[in-house]
Amino acid sequence: MKVKNILGERFKERAFDIESQNLMTRGGYMKQVGNGIYSLFTPAKRIQNKIEAILREEMDRIDGQEVLFPVVMPATLWQSSGRFDSIGKELLRFKDRSGADMVLGMTHEEAAVQMAMNVAGTYQKYPFMIYQIQTKFRDEPRARGGLIRVREFTMKDGYSFHTTQEDLESYYDRAYRAYERIYARAGVPEVIAVKSDSGMMGGKVSHEFMLLTDIGEDSIVICPECGFRANMEACEAITENTADPVSEPLTEVFTGEAKTIEEVAEYLKVTAEKTCKAIVYQRNADDSYILVFCRGDRELNETKLTNYLRAEIHPAVEIENANLAAGNIGPVRLTTTATVLFDRSLVGANNLVCGANKAEYHMTGFDPARDLPADTAFIDLTKAVEGGVCPKCGKHTVKVKRGIEVGNIFQLGRRYTEAMGMTYDDENGARVNPIMGCYGIGVGRLIASVCEAHHDDYGPIWPITIAPWQVEICALRADDPAVREAADRLYKELSDNGAEVLYDDRGVSAGVMFSDADLLGAPIRVVISPKTVARDCFELSARDKSFREDIPTENACAAICSKIKELIDAVNAKVPESI
Amino acid sequence: MKVKNILGERFKERAFDIESQNLMTRGGYMKQVGNGIYSLFTPAKRIQNKIEAILREEMDRIDGQEVLFPVVMPATLWQSSGRFDSIGKELLRFKDRSGADMVLGMTHEEAAVQMAMNVAGTYQKYPFMIYQIQTKFRDEPRARGGLIRVREFTMKDGYSFHTTQEDLESYYDRAYRAYERIYARAGVPEVIAVKSDSGMMGGKVSHEFMLLTDIGEDSIVICPECGFRANMEACEAITENTADPVSEPLTEVFTGEAKTIEEVAEYLKVTAEKTCKAIVYQRNADDSYILVFCRGDRELNETKLTNYLRAEIHPAVEIENANLAAGNIGPVRLTTTATVLFDRSLVGANNLVCGANKAEYHMTGFDPARDLPADTAFIDLTKAVEGGVCPKCGKHTVKVKRGIEVGNIFQLGRRYTEAMGMTYDDENGARVNPIMGCYGIGVGRLIASVCEAHHDDYGPIWPITIAPWQVEICALRADDPAVREAADRLYKELSDNGAEVLYDDRGVSAGVMFSDADLLGAPIRVVISPKTVARDCFELSARDKSFREDIPTENACAAICSKIKELIDAVNAKVPESI
Repeated sequence: MKVKNILGERFKERAFDIESQNLMTRGGYMKQVGNGIYSLFTPAKRIQNKIEAILREEMDRIDGQEVLFPVVMPATLWQSSGRFDSIGKELLRFKDRSGADMVLGMTHEEAAVQMAMNVAGTYQKYPFMIYQIQTKFRDEPRARGGLIRVREFTMKDGYSFHTTQEDLESYYDRAYRAYERIYARAGVPEVIAVKSDSGMMGGKVSHEFMLLTDIGEDSIVICPECGFRANMEACEAITENTADPVSEPLTEVFTGEAKTIEEVAEYLKVTAEKTCKAIVYQRNADDSYILVFCRGDRELNETKLTNYLRAEIHPAVEIENANLAAGNIGPVRLTTTATVLFDRSLVGANNLVCGANKAEYHMTGFDPARDLPADTAFIDLTKAVEGGVCPKCGKHTVKVKRGIEVGNIFQLGRRYTEAMGMTYDDENGARVNPIMGCYGIGVGRLIASVCEAHHDDYGPIWPITIAPWQVEICALRADDPAVREAADRLYKELSDNGAEVLYDDRGVSAGVMFSDADLLGAPIRVVISPKTVARDCFELSARDKSFREDIPTENACAAICSKIKELIDAVNAKVPESI
Repeated sequence: MKVKNILGERFKERAFDIESQNLMTRGGYMKQVGNGIYSLFTPAKRIQNKIEAILREEMDRIDGQEVLFPVVMPATLWQSSGRFDSIGKELLRFKDRSGADMVLGMTHEEAAVQMAMNVAGTYQKYPFMIYQIQTKFRDEPRARGGLIRVREFTMKDGYSFHTTQEDLESYYDRAYRAYERIYARAGVPEVIAVKSDSGMMGGKVSHEFMLLTDIGEDSIVICPECGFRANMEACEAITENTADPVSEPLTEVFTGEAKTIEEVAEYLKVTAEKTCKAIVYQRNADDSYILVFCRGDRELNETKLTNYLRAEIHPAVEIENANLAAGNIGPVRLTTTATVLFDRSLVGANNLVCGANKAEYHMTGFDPARDLPADTAFIDLTKAVEGGVCPKCGKHTVKVKRGIEVGNIFQLGRRYTEAMGMTYDDENGARVNPIMGCYGIGVGRLIASVCEAHHDDYGPIWPITIAPWQVEICALRADDPAVREAADRLYKELSDNGAEVLYDDRGVSAGVMFSDADLLGAPIRVVISPKTVARDCFELSARDKSFREDIPTENACAAICSKIKELIDAVNAKVPESI
């Protein structure tokens, strides 16, 4: 394809803060149509097609069957799983012309069960996995970052069905490995799997595949010592307290206007570690209160609290009705209708400062073991911290990183097949609900993430396996008949040999041509100019600057094709074996 | 792939009247999820992928650039073209979580203009064509026939942009030829192009590609003499009247309860040809009346009337408020507020029976030329009829057939670029709206149509170029070690050689195995049984019964591969050259 024919314009001005959004906008890859809704120009669509081909190959390799579910589904289908009512506004609901309730598919567990229902009625039909590559819509309140977090996106989603937990687990391992292969083939072998929270999907075991980058929305807890990895949402927090030798008596002290932990600690000259903090939440359903006490230097993990309560929650908007002394709430002599919970970070600590449940006063000498009822439960409700204790190896080695989630896999169990009444007859003729797993990868987000991980100031550096074009020919001074002839011939030869070639024969300056080429990100560049013609050679260079050499005009096509193969082989060398 | 692993069940019981729906349901190709909404099982998805590959190749061949538009679009985009208000309920409108009006894309002219806007600002950027293959939703009131008329469907839609009408026309010719190639490559070279009505798309010249079949929803007018073809909606109707030598005077006659043309003609012993019929419609917008007079044996063409009035209309629900004598309406001495129109079928006729605008009375001797005002316009508002006059060659040779529309192409003109304000600078620096064409093919409907055109009582007969699998190996008595060994080896050899092979090694009867194979429709079948093993051969046969032969076990793979190539070549032999 010729650069002059590609629809879309490339420009120099910085467009956005997030680098993938900036470079893919400046490179003419996409255009916003609405909030979180994009059209893709040809360069992005070519990348998408290549990723889809990799996804198909890897899903077929683990015996997946490609199918297609609808984008628009009747609400009745989502009512049959209970999710029509349990999911929030991100599930877009509307009525069709007949007044029937409909939804836009944000995930397809219900559709997968509906497809498999009645056609997998005996145990001999198991296991099987069905997958699709299809448009999804999730009415995100906070679309951001170009293709990183959108409302409409293309997703590969797969659903496996099993008769035993062991069979699910063994298939889950194959899917896990297939995912590693997919990221490696897409040129981002650095993607890591982390244990994750299953959230609205149901099920117990799940992993997210994360690309570590500072612009990531997720916090990942990593232990460099033992390899432990988990999403912050799902990571156990371990706090080691060393108690003072003597537990002081509980004593009320005047603290005046000091209300936050920082203010109180400053006022009383103690560290935040030696305080006990109160955090108030409300249940979305009825605005009832939840009061959590934890060590003053710890942060509440909302996901853990949501999972513990099995209810949607939000930070308390006002606590006037809760009979609580805002800024002075404490665990002792407390009268409240709120659900009161204690975090594990308080275990083993003593001589803590806490609220006195009275304006302008706190207490010193709080000893949870002494001052709370003997049957008080201490549960894990806070976030792991940098330098904290690794839940796996027990060392103080925990690191917290940012990451973008580029895929996830879940062991769903019988959550959907039970709710929807899907059964098969087992060996003994008993009717049993099959066990499910599900496996998702968002295509657009993967594209943006690869760009995030592989770019320089001038544009994306696409891995050759997903680059929109493998080679770009830059014909400087295409008005020179010798340049034109050499460039036209090379373009034809490379194309005839199956290379994916972009050809820039516009009459623009070298500066414009090279900056456009940087933005389009072809891994190999061939420069042809009056100078190279005079030397009877072409200038070959890599977008990632890994090589730059002159190659003789003679046999240039073969040399470039073998360079393409070399780059592809280098990517594939990092792809693990399938299982 | 093994038959036993394909999700989906095949069964014998007739499921639906329309044969493609019946066979594709019985064959486990699809499952209904909601009204006009289907999931596709793997066999159908494989067909779809093959058709999509053909579409991509042919669109790329005519310099198309693949892009991707969103399914969900902001209403503002559709308001900018005026279609948010002008299109009926088939455009699904809803609000997102923020309360913003949104639509589900049923076509993407607006999205195409939005994409091209501001990135094609000078004449040098033209022409270009962008296309996508994407899910669409059209809230059809009458979904029917399985994949023939659905609400959600996958469509290839392309949009070209030009600076001159000549350039559009020359590109339109290329697209027309590309469409002929697509249908031929999909195994239905019998698809014909017919002139069509442009309807809600705007623009003047358009063609529909039709597969003639009795279950088709469209009426097609064809002249076998000169090759003229048009959709009934867009076909000029020509009526030749021979006037009686003497025009009788207008005379009121009693007709009692006779009200319909049949009753009146019977009562007065005249043919319907010698009557003038009144038809009453109402405008959707304000229920105002339209009264059309035509020859009694002619039928109103609603599309022509809609286009003439430039308004949405419906047959009158009641005419009490119109001051019209229902069943006795006539063109003479008529007092009404309705818009009164006369069809061309009345030109040259005389001595017609018509209503007398008075209960129980008609008139005889109506002579339009004599009895209507001299400036009366006679316009073309009725349908062409079987045996009628061909608008092209003028012979009485017209045939009326039924057809399924499997694609369409439109010359849109400046309808959208003007409305949305898309411009470019021409050679003289003037700002001009580009001219557009658009080009659509529904993938699911094409699949169903191919099945409609190519099947027998036992199942679809897929052309090899789109068949889900090229070859099916039927291993009868796979429990026989010799059969198992021969079948396993052939399966591996064929797969290794790139053939798309389905392998049935289930322990089922020959009857079940063959009827399932008929439903899955692989063009080539290889039967391996204890008998063929004893003869040291395989039984090779065609799904379409065009051959049936024994082939030696030795070199069987090569023989089958060359048979595959032969069948592909036979399809491709009917593909016209591209232009």
